[in-house]
Order: sequence, then structure tokens, then C-alpha cells
Amino acid sequence: MKLAVIYDSKSGNTKKAAEWIAEGMNEVEGAQAAAFSVEEVDAEFVKDSCGVVIGCPSYAALMTPNMRNWLFSEAGKLGMAGKLGGAFATEQYSHGGGELIIQSILTNEMVFGMLCYSGGGSFGHPVIHLGPVGINDNVEKYNGMENYRENFRIYGYRFASKAKELFG
Amino acid sequence: MKLAVIYDSKSGNTKKAAEWIAEGMNEVEGAQAAAFSVEEVDAEFVKDSCGVVIGCPSYAALMTPNMRNWLFSEAGKLGMAGKLGGAFATEQYSHGGGELIIQSILTNEMVFGMLCYSGGGSFGHPVIHLGPVGINDNVEKYNGMENYRENFRIYGYRFASKAKELFG
Amino acid sequence: MKLAVIYDSKSGNTKKAAEWIAEGMNEVEGAQAAAFSVEEVDAEFVKDSCGVVIGCPSYAALMTPNMRNWLFSEAGKLGMAGKLGGAFATEQYSHGGGELIIQSILTNEMVFGMLCYSGGGSFGHPVIHLGPVGINDNVEKYNGMENYRENFRIYGYRFASKAKELFG
Amino acid sequence: MKLAVIYDSKSGNTKKAAEWIAEGMNEVEGAQAAAFSVEEVDAEFVKDSCGVVIGCPSYAALMTPNMRNWLFSEAGKLGMAGKLGGAFATEQYSHGGGELIIQSILTNEMVFGMLCYSGGGSFGHPVIHLGPVGINDNVEKYNGMENYRENFRIYGYRFASKAKELFG
Repeated sequence: MKLAVIYDSKSGNTKKAAEWIAEGMNEVEGAQAAAFSVEEVDAEFVKDSCGVVIGCPSYAALMTPNMRNWLFSEAGKLGMAGKLGGAFATEQYSHGGGELIIQSILTNEMVFGMLCYSGGGSFGHPVIHLGPVGINDNVEKYNGMENYRENFRIYGYRFASKAKELFG
Repeated sequence: MKLAVIYDSKSGNTKKAAEWIAEGMNEVEGAQAAAFSVEEVDAEFVKDSCGVVIGCPSYAALMTPNMRNWLFSEAGKLGMAGKLGGAFATEQYSHGGGELIIQSILTNEMVFGMLCYSGGGSFGHPVIHLGPVGINDNVEKYNGMENYRENFRIYGYRFASKAKELFG
Repeated sequence: MKLAVIYDSKSGNTKKAAEWIAEGMNEVEGAQAAAFSVEEVDAEFVKDSCGVVIGCPSYAALMTPNMRNWLFSEAGKLGMAGKLGGAFATEQYSHGGGELIIQSILTNEMVFGMLCYSGGGSFGHPVIHLGPVGINDNVEKYNGMENYRENFRIYGYRFASKAKELFG
Repeated sequence: MKLAVIYDSKSGNTKKAAEWIAEGMNEVEGAQAAAFSVEEVDAEFVKDSCGVVIGCPSYAALMTPNMRNWLFSEAGKLGMAGKLGGAFATEQYSHGGGELIIQSILTNEMVFGMLCYSGGGSFGHPVIHLGPVGINDNVEKYNGMENYRENFRIYGYRFASKAKELFG
């Protein structure tokens, strides 16, 4: 069972988050998960995947132009309809727009005909609403993105578990 | 295979839309769909359903207080996690907020752990983005809600087809 | 008092909507309104404007890549902070995503430090929620975009009236 | 110049945030700011105010039923049109839905005909996108809401400064 995580990342923070999600996915028996930058997506791998999670940083509370362009020009060629769909984001502040980006990505996934899923509160804590959000700030004081590592991993695990249940 | 449509309706427009969705669902062989007002939900029927579609009118671009209260107090008792989830809305103008209400309902469905699905563009025309929206205005000139009847029916049919494929 | 309307348009529908807004603005005494394609924005005119309205068509329920790129690369250079901000959209269906695009544009405008305004229900009918939405479909049967002309014009008039009250 | 902050709060976290905003507002010369629970709003004070900020906690990524009911039944009687409008939220996780609640509140404020404003990036750091969000978690490790105190205060100060510039 293949699962893809696709991200846009400049500083490396969102790449890390994508890899943590893939890590969590790979803990599910039978899962073969990989993370790809929007600039180097393995189209065959994504087409073969039964689930795809897409994420990017918040730029002024919107998705990055890079991600917008990729969703418009490339994502539609990857047979997204019917796949399980997820989304995540990174931001620089608690009010930085991450959830707005997740909502936009999920919206596009629904237009592709995907099944959008986060697990929500059905697994108990942490309750992951629409998808995990990592906050980059306060690295010295609050450990930055590392603070959210576990959320990303758990989200990946839950997502892959549902994919296995549905399509495995 | 049971499927539930749950709506809030005052004037009867949103009730109609809910019934049109249920009509479309019932065209799928094996489907047993029913529409319920938030005030008279058959809890056992919903618990037994593998898919639930929720809709309401736009009041000032937000969901109705009635629907908000029901989602908070009642919906969580109905075993929503893992079910297929959908949403629809009615509005009085093209700019009346219907899609914002759909987005809010889907958000809550994801927090319940549902699989959100509209079919999107995967069935060709009409491309139904997040869920169908009916506009009540211009009854004399433009036929009001009747104008959207076919969209609601098709959405119901597509939703039930996916539910059957996944859980039937 | 200068006012700018900035749009992205391929087929010409959104251009029309932008011009109708500018028309309505110009009905306010003292207003000098002009509409610009994102590809030919008169930067000096926009900088001198006390209000800017931005709009684009819905592509799969998201703003166009063109508009996303312009907001990211160019809009920030135009001294947007403190100006009155508005947004509009066009879509192909009642459920086509127009309001989601408006919400995204307004979000970015708030990050620029603009004052977002639609007039809402304060002027009576038509109650324009976040901004006007034109639906392109059913040209033969329902007159397509022309059907929404009056909404765009009225919105422009209301927007310019508020701009005059605040800054005129 | 009167300014009102209106909140819904159960545990007291959102009340604190509201008071911090009012504190920041009161640092602007001539400002007279007060925070009210939705259950004890001083209607005359709000009617006399030139700016109103509204906030509540995220319940399953939606606004509280209490706040929804108040916005529907009471807020419309307070002469909101033309006032400066702001919004804030509290949540339990970085992905807890705070920004979605802020977006919903701002949407309703625009339907009331308010001028929505956050200051955004126009004041430099902290860039406050749509409004401040406080995260309640990790009280022992990360200081919980106290961690966001400064953001709320600064937001209040910026909001009141703009209100003074426009209406003072």
C-alpha cells in the first residue's frame, strides 16, 4: 500500500513535517510511504498511492504560490479521485494562517473527488481537527517545529491506518 | 445500506433540497436513504448509516443557530467516526454564504473523524465542488430552488455510489 | 478620490464584473475609479487610491494561480495598509467556490493591514455578504453574468460611498 | 472613544484574552475600553463604541453555540454597521481551529457592515494575520495562555490606534 506526502518547503521546516508524517505512515504494517517536494514529485508513485497528504507553509495566510501552481497544473494529472486525502501546514505564529491553508488544500482535494480525512477526535488525544499544524517560532524557548513532531507522526499513523482499512 | 440526510429548515426550501438528495441516493441499488429535520432525527437510523449528509440555510453567511446547537449537543452521540460525510446549503443570493456554511459543516465532520466526499469533478458535469448549493431567489423569473433540483439529486446519487463502493 | 479594481480574467467575465464595480464607484461624486488586469496594474494609481477591490474567477474553488502570484509578488509593493479593501469573484455554478475565493482575498487584504468592507446588510437589499459573486452559467436560459450586473454596480457604489465618508 | 470586547468563556481563558485586548486598547490616549461576556453585554456601551472585537474558544473547530446564538439574536441590535470590527480566538492545540473561528466572526461582522481590521503586517512584528489566537495547552511546559498575552495586548493597542485615527 503506497502513500504519498507532497510538500512545498523553502527553509526545510515543512519538509521535516512531511517526513514525520511519512514516518508515522510507515509504522503501519504494509505501508510504503514517501515524501516528495512539489518540485520533484514521482508521478508514478503518487498514481499508485491510495492516499495523498499535501502541505505547505502559510505565506500571509494563504498557500504558497508554488503550491497553488502545482495544484493547478500538475496535481490533476495524478488520478487523485477516490484516494484518501489529507493536509497539513506550517506557520510562524499561533495566528499565522496554517488552518486556513489546510482548509484550502482540502477544498481542492474534494474538487478532485478525494475522500478527506484527519481522524479528528475519533482516536482521542491529540484531537487533530483538519490536519496537523506546526509553529516555527520560539526555537530557543519552545523548541520550534520539534515541539509538533509527535503530532505529525501520529497523524501519519492514523491516516495510514484508515487507508489500510479502506483500501489495504 | 442506510444513508441519512439531516437538515435544518424553516421555510421548507432546505427540506426540499434534503429530500432531493435522498431521492438521488435511493436510485443506487441497495440504498435506503431518509431525510430528517435536526428536530426529529432518528438516532438509530443515523447510527446504522454508513454515510451522513448535513445541510442548512445560510443566516448572515453562518450556519443557523439550530444547526450549530445540534452539531454540538447531539451529533457527537451518533457514532459519526468513519462514516462518509457530505454537506449542502441553501442561500438567498449568489453571494449568500452557502459555500461558507458547507465548509464549516465539513470541518466539523472531519473533527468527528468522518470521510468527507463530494465527488467533485470526477464525474464530469456538473462539477460539484464541496457540495450542492441552492439559491432561493428569483422564484418567478428563475424558478428558485427548482432550478437546483437536479444538482441535489445527482449529488445524492454520487454520494451513495461512493458509499456503496466503500461500505456496501 | 481614486479607487482601484484589480482583476484576473481569461474569458472576459471577471473583467466585466470589475468594470461594473468601477462604474458603480464612479457614480459617487468625486470618485475616480479604474479597473486593471493583474497583468497591467497602474502602480501609481493604486498607491494613490484610498480603496482597492480585488477579484478573480474560481478555479477548482481556489483563486487563480495568476492572482495568487500577483498577491504574493506585487500587491505588497502598493502601500495597501490602511486602504479600504474589498473582494469579488466569478464562478460557473452556484456551488462553484466564489465565496471561498472572496474569503481568501479578504484574508490577504487583512494581512496587508487593510480595512475590509462590503456594506453587508446595512444598505438593505441586496444584502451583499462578503462581496458580489457572478455566476457565468446558463447564458441562454438565465442571462449569465448580466444577471449579476446590478449587484456589482451597487457594491461599487456602496464601497465608494464608504471610502468617501472615511477618506474623501 | 469607547471600544468594546465581547467574548464567550467557560474556563476563563478567553475572558483573560479579552481583558488583555482591552488593556492594550486602554493604552491609547482617549480610549475607554471594556470587555463583556456575551451573557452580560452592556448594550448602551457597545452602541456608543466605534470599534468592537469579538472572540470565543474553538469547539470542534467551530465557534461556540453560545456565541453563534448571541451573534444571531443580539448582536444585530447593537448598531454594528460602520464600526471597526475585530476578532480573536482561543484553542487547545496549534491545529485547534482558532483561525477558522476568527474567519467566521469576521464574516458575520462584514455582513453587519463593519470595517474589519487586524493591522496585519503593517506594524512589523508580531504580524497578526486575522486576529490573535491563544493556545491553552502545555501550561506547565509552555506557560499556556500567558505565552500569548503580549499578542493580545498589542492587537488591542493597534486596533484602538486605528479606531482613533478613523473616528477619534
